[in-house]
Amino acid sequence: MSELIEKLNWRYATKRMNGESVPQEKLDNILEAIKLAPSSVGLQPYNIVIVKDQALKDRIHNEAASRQAQIPDASHLLIFAVWEKVTSQHVDDYIKFFAATRNISVESLAGFHSSINGGILSRSEDVNFDWSARQAYIALGHGLVAAATEEVDATPMEGFDAAKVDEILGLREKGLRSVVILALGYRDADKDPYVNAKKVRRSREELFISI
Amino acid sequence: MSELIEKLNWRYATKRMNGESVPQEKLDNILEAIKLAPSSVGLQPYNIVIVKDQALKDRIHNEAASRQAQIPDASHLLIFAVWEKVTSQHVDDYIKFFAATRNISVESLAGFHSSINGGILSRSEDVNFDWSARQAYIALGHGLVAAATEEVDATPMEGFDAAKVDEILGLREKGLRSVVILALGYRDADKDPYVNAKKVRRSREELFISI
Repeated sequence: MSELIEKLNWRYATKRMNGESVPQEKLDNILEAIKLAPSSVGLQPYNIVIVKDQALKDRIHNEAASRQAQIPDASHLLIFAVWEKVTSQHVDDYIKFFAATRNISVESLAGFHSSINGGILSRSEDVNFDWSARQAYIALGHGLVAAATEEVDATPMEGFDAAKVDEILGLREKGLRSVVILALGYRDADKDPYVNAKKVRRSREELFISI
Repeated sequence: MSELIEKLNWRYATKRMNGESVPQEKLDNILEAIKLAPSSVGLQPYNIVIVKDQALKDRIHNEAASRQAQIPDASHLLIFAVWEKVTSQHVDDYIKFFAATRNISVESLAGFHSSINGGILSRSEDVNFDWSARQAYIALGHGLVAAATEEVDATPMEGFDAAKVDEILGLREKGLRSVVILALGYRDADKDPYVNAKKVRRSREELFISI
């Protein structure tokens, strides 16, 4: 068994955290792994909002997350927020950034540019929103694994009032809508009844189909 | 910089692979990381189809994937396929499996059971399909990171004809629909023009919003 698999067996959806802060270096590695997540055509159609402020965590806890106990006792909440709509400005900016990063001309990317425009901008806002959310979930997967390797507990959460979180954090004004939260912190082994619970995962034989 | 970040910088969306096989031990670690990915309420509403057979890879390449060169030269294709619809049978089976895994009674899970039924079975098939796809993308993220740590190249692909892949693999009869493919193999450094291309990712300042 690889070290990574050991770490992934160590992680679990922590329901009680102890309020300890995640050190900056560990947080940086988790954020860097999220940044490095691939996305379709490389667009990264999302932002991640980092909430450390206790008053904001408390508001999310009380007003938007059914008072789930890991929220106020987490060190940081990473709120994955998807672009409300993908615009031609987004694509143009991406192409310019792509050209600058690779030190090539925007003109040399004309084919790539028009294929993104044709493929993405022709779709409905709803389709693009779901597509953007999927890309954000790849980044969530990266964040989960990176947190485990840093021995930081990480609880992915969908069970919150997204509209309320967006309001608390002012996300709609930024063209963003929250889709999933990753609470980062440290397990409270005395208070969390699930700390030693056996992991429930379908067997390899049930999950994988070899053809 | 952590070792994980080094590995994630090493990885890229490989467009040309060299046909070499991924050893079973490495494949096993990648599959185990995918198995260990968390999902909402733990349901894992997907299966992963493993395609190693060359004739099948060739058919997907020719008939369903615009002849993208990494497909036939990949060692394995992992086809993430989502449950076409989430049924009460799925949920009942999951609750039984959960109880057996944790050695507790099904009755003791009545609250959990009814909350899943209330939360998921009340939604439309389309909403559940998108939700299931998001869960599969967490597992995709796990697979991507695990492949990088094993120094196995991994290319996530959405640009394929899902209905055609489903037909080739007989997925509809199994109640499954493909959503994303992870091609695993080894880069052909001589043929892949992107092997040394600079990674294009928005800066930390652009991607993250600290509040």
